[in-house]
Amino acid sequence: MKKSPESTTLVFLSMTSQRLSSVPASPIRKLVPYATAAKKAGVKVYHFNIGDPDIKTPEVMLQVLRDWDRNPVGYSQSQGEPSLLESLKIYYHGLGAIFLDTSHLQVTIGGSEAISWALFAVADPGDEIIVFEPFYANYNTYAAVNGVQLVPIPTNLSDGFHLPAQSVIEGKITKKTKAILYCNPNNPTGTVYSKSEIETLVALAKKHGLFLLSDEVYREFTYDGARQVSLLSFMQEIPEHAIVLDSLSKRYSVCGARIGALISLNQDIMAGVLRIGQGRLSAGLIDQLMAAKLTKVPVSYFQEVHDEYEKRRDVLYEGLRHIPGVTIPKPEGAFYAIVGLPVEDAEHFCQWLLTDFRDPSPSADGSGQAETVMVAPAAGFYATPGKGKNEVRIAYVLSIPDIIRCIDILTKALNAYHP
Amino acid sequence: MKKSPESTTLVFLSMTSQRLSSVPASPIRKLVPYATAAKKAGVKVYHFNIGDPDIKTPEVMLQVLRDWDRNPVGYSQSQGEPSLLESLKIYYHGLGAIFLDTSHLQVTIGGSEAISWALFAVADPGDEIIVFEPFYANYNTYAAVNGVQLVPIPTNLSDGFHLPAQSVIEGKITKKTKAILYCNPNNPTGTVYSKSEIETLVALAKKHGLFLLSDEVYREFTYDGARQVSLLSFMQEIPEHAIVLDSLSKRYSVCGARIGALISLNQDIMAGVLRIGQGRLSAGLIDQLMAAKLTKVPVSYFQEVHDEYEKRRDVLYEGLRHIPGVTIPKPEGAFYAIVGLPVEDAEHFCQWLLTDFRDPSPSADGSGQAETVMVAPAAGFYATPGKGKNEVRIAYVLSIPDIIRCIDILTKALNAYHP
Repeated sequence: MKKSPESTTLVFLSMTSQRLSSVPASPIRKLVPYATAAKKAGVKVYHFNIGDPDIKTPEVMLQVLRDWDRNPVGYSQSQGEPSLLESLKIYYHGLGAIFLDTSHLQVTIGGSEAISWALFAVADPGDEIIVFEPFYANYNTYAAVNGVQLVPIPTNLSDGFHLPAQSVIEGKITKKTKAILYCNPNNPTGTVYSKSEIETLVALAKKHGLFLLSDEVYREFTYDGARQVSLLSFMQEIPEHAIVLDSLSKRYSVCGARIGALISLNQDIMAGVLRIGQGRLSAGLIDQLMAAKLTKVPVSYFQEVHDEYEKRRDVLYEGLRHIPGVTIPKPEGAFYAIVGLPVEDAEHFCQWLLTDFRDPSPSADGSGQAETVMVAPAAGFYATPGKGKNEVRIAYVLSIPDIIRCIDILTKALNAYHP
Repeated sequence: MKKSPESTTLVFLSMTSQRLSSVPASPIRKLVPYATAAKKAGVKVYHFNIGDPDIKTPEVMLQVLRDWDRNPVGYSQSQGEPSLLESLKIYYHGLGAIFLDTSHLQVTIGGSEAISWALFAVADPGDEIIVFEPFYANYNTYAAVNGVQLVPIPTNLSDGFHLPAQSVIEGKITKKTKAILYCNPNNPTGTVYSKSEIETLVALAKKHGLFLLSDEVYREFTYDGARQVSLLSFMQEIPEHAIVLDSLSKRYSVCGARIGALISLNQDIMAGVLRIGQGRLSAGLIDQLMAAKLTKVPVSYFQEVHDEYEKRRDVLYEGLRHIPGVTIPKPEGAFYAIVGLPVEDAEHFCQWLLTDFRDPSPSADGSGQAETVMVAPAAGFYATPGKGKNEVRIAYVLSIPDIIRCIDILTKALNAYHP
């Protein structure tokens, strides 16, 4: 890119809107240039840092592409393609939410659009929304884009990042508080909230007239026989205050098909988000018609995916917890873990892994390729300065042999790291 | 949907954010329930009201679906899929903008995301953006979502909706003005701005330090041998102030594949919109890989599409201008026309067409199906109250025989209309 003359640069630095500079860079992607440089130098980098699963997309969805016969590829409806709305209804009925009809569903372009619209719909600029930190880093982006203030309440590695007592949450509620936004199962902690934790949140919503925004993108990813307690179960109890945010990305391993959903019994919310949706015309037709096949995905698909992740979780947990100085609560769901490391500055360690540390891949003759691992510094998932400084987030979306190799590399790296 | 008890309803009416109620309903979709009712009663409704083209999607794009072999359908990159960025660069180079490289391009989810991000990036809440009315109605939605104020400057049917004198535009610039947003070729008027009109806008941007946001979604749709004057030609002259907003929807008849682009030499703008883009992860992978084939679309495709629309424009223009009391400037581009009707209240007339007027389709034995036509009242495309009251917007996206039939129905309807 051509450089502008300096004088022009000075002018235009103040030219964009102030709020544009308030949109944060993604902490997950911050180290990407170092990873790219390592790969260019011939190093194999294991991506233990980002939640892009390697699980196959269901065949019945891919078949929609191969059989494609709609021409032209025209707009879908702003609320959502009717066949997808119908399939989503069937899916939610299967979860027990038989009180939902399609008028309570809005198809969104990924879970991200659902979350962003929810923030817009419940809070005016300057209003506050309570979140539990560490939290999904993109919540910061949606907050900046919508001009709302996230008010973080700390949770801790020592108790598996479960919610604090009701009084602690209550202490953060002000006149400006409009909602509590939570993610269950949790990205980035892997925590699955108990029924009594959800009941506490519902009680708070009732008592203080707050919205509950429940990000349930990882609903099916719960381990050790546990089941997620969905906000859907409490939707009739707080019909005007409950909004469920969903995505098909992880459930069906279709991250690149941008399909999510916003679900609420609140008619004003549904009418309002539909008006926003009309402005962007529709979600993608092809992605929606693929997604509409969700009712045809065999149950065995989920069982296999679930069992595979549970095994990966076990391998990760058992592998890491035996490294001296490493602390990891047993992840209960999703496919993430926040892991405490025996380092002072995890960001420096993560960068060092990419720039300095190399381990030859195991081979008979000792001539293996140089390898390293990429993990995400956890500080970017916290809003409170200084928190998470010695923690990293790991996404266990790799095959079991690769996870084992990553643990091996991390063990050696922690031994070799003397900053 | 179950009705909530009245008391609850009263509470929750004030519960959503205030700004949610500021998001307008789409004026194009307002009459949809009447059209639905007419269709249910067996009436054939010609959709002369909405820009969803009937032109086929290029085969080379559809072939991407049939040959699909990526599994899983994973995230694309936040800036855009590399092959699409490369194809877009080649396309813009072909238009003469050889100074662009991929760092100046951001893939967006439709033109709508590009427009919305541009408003966010150049204006803070309460800032003003000048538009020329009538304008694309969804600009109102993006303005509401981003909390910015659209300041409309009237243009008139009598001179084909061309821009007013520089002094008139200048008279609307205040300390809060951050940008001028215009659409060229224009939706809803069909106007193609002359080189000197664009030069005037560029001069204003320079003089007052304003952004120019040029919505060029209909770039190739210009008639009578004219060519659109793109803001790309002036981009190097005002490198920090020019933003081009684009979409593949109309050019390749892929409205349902949500792919657009935001183009600027301003590095702060590009870095900022990329941060917003990281928040929504990526545009759809499948839509992007389809769109990346744009360089393989044969030139004959565009020539045929162009010639077809020019013929439709001719049929529409010749047909309508001979109806007594109807005024229509000759549309110069896009596939829309704003048409003055000999009625007092075009919205009432449009509704009456759907609820009351029926014309039997021509048939030998006189037993033809009841038919009517749907057009959009133009008032929704104006911001100034009272303007456009006797005008409608027509989208000539129908086949020529259907356009002829629509003109026939409109002629009879205007004769029969006695409100």
